[in-house]
Amino acid sequence: MEDMLDTEILAFDGFDELDVVAPLEILKSAGFEVRLVTSAPCDIVYGAYGLKVRPDGVLGARPALLVVSGGGWVTNAPQGARAEVRRGVLPAEIAERHAAGTVVAGVCTGGMLLAAAGLLRGRPAVTHHSALDDLRAYGVDVRPDARVVDDGDVITSGGVTSGIDLALHLVARELGKAAAAAAAARIEYDVRGAVLDTSQG
Amino acid sequence: MEDMLDTEILAFDGFDELDVVAPLEILKSAGFEVRLVTSAPCDIVYGAYGLKVRPDGVLGARPALLVVSGGGWVTNAPQGARAEVRRGVLPAEIAERHAAGTVVAGVCTGGMLLAAAGLLRGRPAVTHHSALDDLRAYGVDVRPDARVVDDGDVITSGGVTSGIDLALHLVARELGKAAAAAAAARIEYDVRGAVLDTSQG
Repeated sequence: MEDMLDTEILAFDGFDELDVVAPLEILKSAGFEVRLVTSAPCDIVYGAYGLKVRPDGVLGARPALLVVSGGGWVTNAPQGARAEVRRGVLPAEIAERHAAGTVVAGVCTGGMLLAAAGLLRGRPAVTHHSALDDLRAYGVDVRPDARVVDDGDVITSGGVTSGIDLALHLVARELGKAAAAAAAARIEYDVRGAVLDTSQG
Repeated sequence: MEDMLDTEILAFDGFDELDVVAPLEILKSAGFEVRLVTSAPCDIVYGAYGLKVRPDGVLGARPALLVVSGGGWVTNAPQGARAEVRRGVLPAEIAERHAAGTVVAGVCTGGMLLAAAGLLRGRPAVTHHSALDDLRAYGVDVRPDARVVDDGDVITSGGVTSGIDLALHLVARELGKAAAAAAAARIEYDVRGAVLDTSQG
């Protein structure tokens, strides 16, 4: 397994705040190097619920791990994951990084951006419960009962707070179960839901 | 019960990201008016794990509800809740708002700022597990088994992710259990831990 300590978290206007911040805090506190990035340079990226965040920079050419947030899918918000699927820039950029060897993880409807990037066709994945049918329409082997699906180079999770479980899974995958248990204890979180791990064959 | 829809979330350099963002997203999505504020005007407030947030403004004279985040207690970070207790400005400002009628809620070691403000002496409360002895030293009736303690005009919660449960409790208290259940379903979260509610006498 390649070193995933070099991590970027991709945000865009309309991002779901917890989708971004839970992995950011958990991965950073566990020792990952984490940068919050946007596609194009900007001073502030705006969350769906009003959080105004200054990014650390723009998406790199090939981070070891790229975490993609969701947001605004259910409400068909003018800004958010659905708008970004329509616009097509982020899916193309995600596909490029994946082709270059980046492990890509989708939180919540960030998984729809992975699907639009062509990364999930015929592969097991999950997303927010409101978007499962949309995910299926991309030819994805949808696993609605999983909280996290690890298919090796692509990893997905269910809605919003499942980003906590996804991050703890990434800590376990990279640094071991003891590190993940320590991270969960620090944030007083009981790991919940099923992790479907098909990456070990 | 007074209307708590007018909500401010207090951040300071070294704030724990999830302490702030979980209540922000959950309360805002449920219909609360939420402003992320700092004590003094600033362009950016810096989270403990590198998140850079632009505040919405400064702490108001009397918000209906003031949510106080924690951060950096365990590590005795140069910036964070412990540093703010030493500095004393935030505890004094929190005490003023409480005296003016603001309901004050502490997430994680934000509870230590409430204790330093003198709001918790002889009253039931909880905080991050690493700070329970420090909380006890303020003469607080510490309830380590509770995830959330609602004592009416002061509310506290355990560590980090307990801010999710605190926010869902506030939604239930203000808008009813159905609204809280809808908020929990949207973020795919199963309410966990015990809420100790002494506010109903």
